[in-house]
Amino acid sequence: MTTATDTVATPTTTALVHISSLVTNDPSLGEGPLGLIQDAAVVIDGDRIAWVGETSKAPATDNRVDAAGRAAIPGFVDSHSHLVFAGDRTEEFNARMSGRAYSAGGIRTTVAATRAASNNVLNANVARYVVEALHQGTTTLEIKSGYGLTSEDEARALSIAAAHTDEVTFLGAHIVAPEFADDPAAYVDLVTGPMLDMCAPHARWVDVFCERGAFDGDQARAVLTAGKERGLIPRVHANQLSYGPGVQLAVELGAASADHCTHLTDADVDALAQGDTVATLLPGAEFSTRSTYPDARRLLDAGATVALSPDCNPGSSFTSSMPFCIALAVRDMGMTPDEAVWAATAGGARALRRDDVGRIAPGARADLALLDAPSHVHLAYRPGVPLVSAVWRAGTLV
Amino acid sequence: MTTATDTVATPTTTALVHISSLVTNDPSLGEGPLGLIQDAAVVIDGDRIAWVGETSKAPATDNRVDAAGRAAIPGFVDSHSHLVFAGDRTEEFNARMSGRAYSAGGIRTTVAATRAASNNVLNANVARYVVEALHQGTTTLEIKSGYGLTSEDEARALSIAAAHTDEVTFLGAHIVAPEFADDPAAYVDLVTGPMLDMCAPHARWVDVFCERGAFDGDQARAVLTAGKERGLIPRVHANQLSYGPGVQLAVELGAASADHCTHLTDADVDALAQGDTVATLLPGAEFSTRSTYPDARRLLDAGATVALSPDCNPGSSFTSSMPFCIALAVRDMGMTPDEAVWAATAGGARALRRDDVGRIAPGARADLALLDAPSHVHLAYRPGVPLVSAVWRAGTLV
Ligand SMILES: [Zn+2]
Ligand SMILES: [Zn+2]
Repeated sequence: MTTATDTVATPTTTALVHISSLVTNDPSLGEGPLGLIQDAAVVIDGDRIAWVGETSKAPATDNRVDAAGRAAIPGFVDSHSHLVFAGDRTEEFNARMSGRAYSAGGIRTTVAATRAASNNVLNANVARYVVEALHQGTTTLEIKSGYGLTSEDEARALSIAAAHTDEVTFLGAHIVAPEFADDPAAYVDLVTGPMLDMCAPHARWVDVFCERGAFDGDQARAVLTAGKERGLIPRVHANQLSYGPGVQLAVELGAASADHCTHLTDADVDALAQGDTVATLLPGAEFSTRSTYPDARRLLDAGATVALSPDCNPGSSFTSSMPFCIALAVRDMGMTPDEAVWAATAGGARALRRDDVGRIAPGARADLALLDAPSHVHLAYRPGVPLVSAVWRAGTLV
Repeated sequence: MTTATDTVATPTTTALVHISSLVTNDPSLGEGPLGLIQDAAVVIDGDRIAWVGETSKAPATDNRVDAAGRAAIPGFVDSHSHLVFAGDRTEEFNARMSGRAYSAGGIRTTVAATRAASNNVLNANVARYVVEALHQGTTTLEIKSGYGLTSEDEARALSIAAAHTDEVTFLGAHIVAPEFADDPAAYVDLVTGPMLDMCAPHARWVDVFCERGAFDGDQARAVLTAGKERGLIPRVHANQLSYGPGVQLAVELGAASADHCTHLTDADVDALAQGDTVATLLPGAEFSTRSTYPDARRLLDAGATVALSPDCNPGSSFTSSMPFCIALAVRDMGMTPDEAVWAATAGGARALRRDDVGRIAPGARADLALLDAPSHVHLAYRPGVPLVSAVWRAGTLV
């Protein structure tokens, strides 16, 4: 009850107790690299984690929620999505998977529909997929532009994304805009000049699709360097469809993440292992295009840091499900269930250079997902089953 | 409001209108093999479908529910599950996927735990997974015994299953019971004699795991023949781990379904194409054991009828998700999205010899799932995303 004397909300403390198995991602708090605690409790104070430990040692709190033997994990940190779009590409997908001819415009189809859409339509679309991801346990979500490809449309996409997340990425260099098909150099000049001027204030990150048919190494370098000069931090779509310079460029320029990493030479793997750039693997794209999965085992064995993301977009990977990516990573990419869960939480946080998310430890943001299962392993053991049964984001049950 | 004058419930009619795209599985009602209708309406009268057509032509009804442009499909018909079990095999799965040694007892582990469990524990476990499947759109679910392997424990499993479904399968011949390891013939005598006597009254189907290490062709024939003599209809776990006699035996004995069908000779495919036995493919098992998927395309091209099922069990495939199986079937088994959705609905109904489920047509049971998507294709297009947003079973919204 609200009374006249307590109109200012007092942060209350809530203890979530009897968590059968808690992934903290803090080895100092529990067992192994995941910092696992059995029969654990987590105390939430306002929007932060205040205390983590065994239920039997939990301090007194205002409220107490019994997890009844379910497992908990940090909220997923999804560092790669393309959610500012309009249009429907169902038939393109259907034709591709059914072996039927279809004159697909690919990304251009989405660019045309996105440009034609109102702000309200785009905003509602983003909101829909953000909520969909949240209910699947994703409490931090990066969102890219890249379907506008004019200064105005890219800036619009970024400001719409910024209404939903702090992790906004300028991807004017997604493909060469259709109007510049005959003069890609002029498009790079636009992206690195006037478009960047309009977009930089709305974004934290700059990204480029470094791939045959998109942007080559020199063009990608120009885009990322210009972005850095404007205070944006690089991340790179690298080595998805073919071998190329993207990964090593990402490491050289200090990118937070090289995304896809499907076609890697030994030198690429070495670069990732030596540098600070996270290898973000996006198996949804290989799933939905019937391509070969990236080799996570090779990267992990070399010492690289691996993150996972669904790469939600309407063309190559229209999933928002991190649990699905975990299951694929275990089945098809050589990751253990522990490694995959780490990559989907702490790995994503590394790829976004965040230390307040991706872990459940005192001081971290109170982002966690409760699973209808006794262990995080069930995310791989029970593929496709919607196991995420409750999600807290910044201390609020969603 | 209930009043004294209407204590007897009168069946009411409800129209579900503005379904963006409706899969009826009745080609006489709509386009193509799925009988698709755009902007469709379905009228439910009590527990049955009373009318199907375009929204603009829908008759007057007591209630009207607006699907708001979402797609609808028949409730999934899952013809293969092993839900009467107890015990936890998470560590066995984790070790297998992590490349760690683990002295797994396999099915025997579950047999020991199941025998030791109370009726209440087993019943609660079944109820949990039935509800979990129902919320993912599965409105008809076959359940097998097979973790008891004594006459009493098998009969107990069947009567527990029968409290949840009409589709109960006696699988005393799952593996040779541990007590009979040195005398498999005596176990077959038990299964075909006293155990069958106790179990037949509780079951509709008889099943056998025809595989090296389980039951050979002669033993499988004995089990299925004995079951037929007691009025049970055969279904067979066939050709999962290796080539073998299971599929052709299934067709010869008029089995409703040959399940798995992973290792098929041309003669096996021919037999399935010529006979009335459905090929039920269970890709969850290949997913969770990192095995090669069955080739659905080959079976479909030969003219065989294909069904899909998650094969929910705690050892080889602990998923209850039919949408997940649809996505795998499209990605890895050569099925089109249309074929996969048909196989998960009408195909399952064929595998259970049911014509009241698996389709949305006048007279059928009112089982349907509403999707948070404009088309059934999204079940493959959006893998892992929990798209099933509302489920009706026998006319009741669950
Ligand atoms: Zn991307
Ligand atoms: Zn089975």
